[in-house]
Amino acid sequence: MADYRVPLKDMSFLLFDVFKADDMWAQLPKLAESVDKETAEAILQECAKIAEQEIAPISQQGHETGVSFENGNVSTAPGFKAAFDTYVAGGWTALGGDPEYGGMGMPKILTAQHEEMLCSADISFTLYPVLTAGAALSLAKHGSEELKQRYLTRMYAGDWSASMCLTEAHAGSDLGIIRTKAVPQDDGSYSITGSKIFITGGEHDLTDNIIHLVLAKLPDAPAGPRGISLFLVPKFNVNNDESLGERNKVSCGSIEHKMGINASATCVMNFDGAQGYLIGELNKGLTCMFTMMNFERIGVGIQGLGAAVRSYQNALEYAQDRLQGKAAARDKSGLKNTGKEADSIMVHGDVRRMLLNMKALNEGSRALSTYIAMQLDYATYGEGDKQVKGEALATLMTPLAKAFFTDLGFENTVTGQQVFGGHGFIREWGQEQLVRDARITQIYEGTNGIQAMDLLVRKVAGSNGKLMQVFIDEMRTFTQEHQSTEMQEFIAPLTTAVDELIALTDFLLVRSQDNINELGSAANDYLHVFGYTAMAFIWAKMAAVALDKQASGDNFYQSKLKTARYYFIRLLPRRISLIAAARSGCEVLFDFEDELF
Amino acid sequence: MADYRVPLKDMSFLLFDVFKADDMWAQLPKLAESVDKETAEAILQECAKIAEQEIAPISQQGHETGVSFENGNVSTAPGFKAAFDTYVAGGWTALGGDPEYGGMGMPKILTAQHEEMLCSADISFTLYPVLTAGAALSLAKHGSEELKQRYLTRMYAGDWSASMCLTEAHAGSDLGIIRTKAVPQDDGSYSITGSKIFITGGEHDLTDNIIHLVLAKLPDAPAGPRGISLFLVPKFNVNNDESLGERNKVSCGSIEHKMGINASATCVMNFDGAQGYLIGELNKGLTCMFTMMNFERIGVGIQGLGAAVRSYQNALEYAQDRLQGKAAARDKSGLKNTGKEADSIMVHGDVRRMLLNMKALNEGSRALSTYIAMQLDYATYGEGDKQVKGEALATLMTPLAKAFFTDLGFENTVTGQQVFGGHGFIREWGQEQLVRDARITQIYEGTNGIQAMDLLVRKVAGSNGKLMQVFIDEMRTFTQEHQSTEMQEFIAPLTTAVDELIALTDFLLVRSQDNINELGSAANDYLHVFGYTAMAFIWAKMAAVALDKQASGDNFYQSKLKTARYYFIRLLPRRISLIAAARSGCEVLFDFEDELF
Repeated sequence: MADYRVPLKDMSFLLFDVFKADDMWAQLPKLAESVDKETAEAILQECAKIAEQEIAPISQQGHETGVSFENGNVSTAPGFKAAFDTYVAGGWTALGGDPEYGGMGMPKILTAQHEEMLCSADISFTLYPVLTAGAALSLAKHGSEELKQRYLTRMYAGDWSASMCLTEAHAGSDLGIIRTKAVPQDDGSYSITGSKIFITGGEHDLTDNIIHLVLAKLPDAPAGPRGISLFLVPKFNVNNDESLGERNKVSCGSIEHKMGINASATCVMNFDGAQGYLIGELNKGLTCMFTMMNFERIGVGIQGLGAAVRSYQNALEYAQDRLQGKAAARDKSGLKNTGKEADSIMVHGDVRRMLLNMKALNEGSRALSTYIAMQLDYATYGEGDKQVKGEALATLMTPLAKAFFTDLGFENTVTGQQVFGGHGFIREWGQEQLVRDARITQIYEGTNGIQAMDLLVRKVAGSNGKLMQVFIDEMRTFTQEHQSTEMQEFIAPLTTAVDELIALTDFLLVRSQDNINELGSAANDYLHVFGYTAMAFIWAKMAAVALDKQASGDNFYQSKLKTARYYFIRLLPRRISLIAAARSGCEVLFDFEDELF
Repeated sequence: MADYRVPLKDMSFLLFDVFKADDMWAQLPKLAESVDKETAEAILQECAKIAEQEIAPISQQGHETGVSFENGNVSTAPGFKAAFDTYVAGGWTALGGDPEYGGMGMPKILTAQHEEMLCSADISFTLYPVLTAGAALSLAKHGSEELKQRYLTRMYAGDWSASMCLTEAHAGSDLGIIRTKAVPQDDGSYSITGSKIFITGGEHDLTDNIIHLVLAKLPDAPAGPRGISLFLVPKFNVNNDESLGERNKVSCGSIEHKMGINASATCVMNFDGAQGYLIGELNKGLTCMFTMMNFERIGVGIQGLGAAVRSYQNALEYAQDRLQGKAAARDKSGLKNTGKEADSIMVHGDVRRMLLNMKALNEGSRALSTYIAMQLDYATYGEGDKQVKGEALATLMTPLAKAFFTDLGFENTVTGQQVFGGHGFIREWGQEQLVRDARITQIYEGTNGIQAMDLLVRKVAGSNGKLMQVFIDEMRTFTQEHQSTEMQEFIAPLTTAVDELIALTDFLLVRSQDNINELGSAANDYLHVFGYTAMAFIWAKMAAVALDKQASGDNFYQSKLKTARYYFIRLLPRRISLIAAARSGCEVLFDFEDELF
């Protein structure tokens, strides 16, 4: 496997050339205190070191060894504890945290880059800190001052990690039917009883304590999702002097054996009258959880991207080194037959297609996720119109980020494996791990089918197109402002794509008035039409900057321009078939009796 | 995991209703001796029993245990030896073999169904007998009478298995640069020295002897592919009384640890002056090997299908059982909200989309592979025009079968895993094994990129469109003969698809006159355009039969008709985007300097 190299130049290009993050930070008082360009670049460079030097090297061993389970205890793979300690010592667990409780207050646009690096290095490792960060976000927003002082500070410090306990054996996508019970106690705490499955990091040996955020229902709670509350359940109770007290009545019953992310502990967690503390209001647990979920969903999108970036780097190195076959005799490209026994496989059009697909989709995903992260920052730290617009775009695009980047991420890891031929299937070369690790990102934190429904049903149709209009306006403004001749190769197809996205949206909203199943039936295709169109917008934005900068002579901008061109010519057309499918109606799906399957 | 159930009714529908295999057999003298409808149905039923009852039950254990390697010996997973013995005792190793040497002489159209069943049950297990069958085909066609009497008879009997030793560490897709040497000996045999990698079934404990077919070069052989010869190298030399003699100088150096097909031994095989026997003529080894390769490539296509069929059965059972969420309140489809806590996930449009994608692509692949197998039978057993046409179609469509069915097979196993949500990622549910096993089918026996080049460069362009015209004529004849009103929903889009395939072919042939890289750059997209169009033809053929038979009231025909409709409306449009990519030119791929990647 190639050594992982963080794409720092691309990250810096996005932050400061394309999205002018430094200008945004200067304008938002809370962020102006925490971060400027110099700080951000130093953070990215330091984080790159830890990803490249501490985490990437333990990944393959983690894949081979996995986690082990004995007597309720989980042991992580060799090197994980040491790497985690180094990570904590560097202060990385505090990166995005609230400064009032010891966090560094860094914006999402920056922590998104941090997450990508970690995930390229190793998704399994990354899950331990990012789930903690997600739980911290929920706790910071909804927890009482007492809970925050006691737990949040320690989570930011990296002393304790966290887990999210949502799923039960019979209730995954449908949390409304969970059965875990919370019974109020005289001291104001709750007694939590029930069993949760698929709990990432539910038990492990990296931290002294694990703080579980648990969805449960009071005995008299309303049925369905409106009866769910959120509780904090520590593995060890915490004494008033902040030392660890006795073990709470929560334990790990077993761990799952999975297709991938072998080094991440996926636990069955049993609560047997465990002491828990309410977070937020009773019966508003889903709201509290969604604070975390939206954060996590963008993060999961970035996980898919991270694996794909690593796969591209490996595939590129392999393609350059591997000698097999010869360049075509009539080749006019300048990639001449070298006269050697064999040429590098880079001479073959289909190998170039695979590599450029990966490059264009990865860089497009990074740019689009950075854009969405920026909207989250406006939503969180902005004021007035900018806040409203950021909130709208972040709300709209969260399911897109999760599903689109993970679908592309998985596709790209498979493509990167294919470049290796037979060696891609062999474990020691590392490409198969990336495929296996990336696969889960399409499934967890809400399957991509659920995300597609969330986008089309809840966000687009649910706002009667209003949220969508915000993004359409954004793209329209951009195309109107970039009508130069040299931008036409991007602006013309982008304009068509935007027009057709609007037409498709209108078509589906009208059709769904007559039959609500039109939405669910079209949702997956719609999400991808939206994704390729949004990515065209973001590639056009990058192309505009690269055109401005190309006179510098830096190859980086030439590469950006040519990759943008590749995206528009080779990849944007994918939306055409997807539109045809999305418009084909739900009859063909629903006029199909169960006994005919 | 659901119990595997062989789709016998669909196989019978294809053989006898759609393709009238019994009529073909009656017309071809060699086949008329071996097989008729009654025999064929008995064979399918018996084979279904062994697939369902003997092979499917050992699959998961094989995935978990894998094969083990110690002191040069390979031990297969628990149950494999017993299942293999049962398989041999049933005479299945002789099924497609030449009757002169103990084979049963069954046609490919029938053995293709047999292969699908085996692969749905377990690909790893299946590789042991199907590679032997492939080697037997090469030996039967090119081997001397002495070699056939000594080895072929024992391979058909199931006493001995075979391996194919092609790849070397530096030479996979490019066999012209292999280094394994064959030095002529005084007794007419050859001394073989070299190291081969990725040798499936190179060593194992299922049979007493293993017959390796090995590509090697004589010291004075011409450079490149024209200097390759094929040799038979037994693991144990065979005495004149047919008993096993001393161990030959061939040994297994190690086995690979892979992403999937864990129970199949993938070996490094070292030849250290091993005694070998020439098969066919000197320096014509690739020709001999391609006899086997064409057979294997269709078989590999069927492997992808086999895994996908199993995944569909599992996903359907899961979807029917899993209660999660509720049917839409405004649902007009009759899939009413049951009023229970949750409905089956079959009520969701996106779940139905996933299941119907799998069903339509699996049944389409089975039908198209059966059609191609029939062409191979005409090529092998036919005479005159029918033989010529069969040969042309089999030659043209072999790379299509390999790449298209495995790409769809992998897609479908991933889709089937997605239906399971989180459980799809957990090993015990079985869906992740199918994904991991199916993945290799896109890689081995020539990567799908190589197949795409073979189709477009060698077959389509190499015959200057003549081979393609044979298939176009076949589709044109069909559309002209099926102009009834009720067939229009299939014939109209099929006609468009055929017209556009012709136009794309012409476009690429003309463009490639100017720049040969146009072919390689478009090859992958072209193969899929061809595949979806050919599958539309085959779905229209099935629909025509189903329309004739629907009055019978059998749900099977209703299901066929509705699935055909689904294919045309939802899946055939995939070709539109692919055409756009295939027409986009090679500049965008080749005007991209190496340092810009």
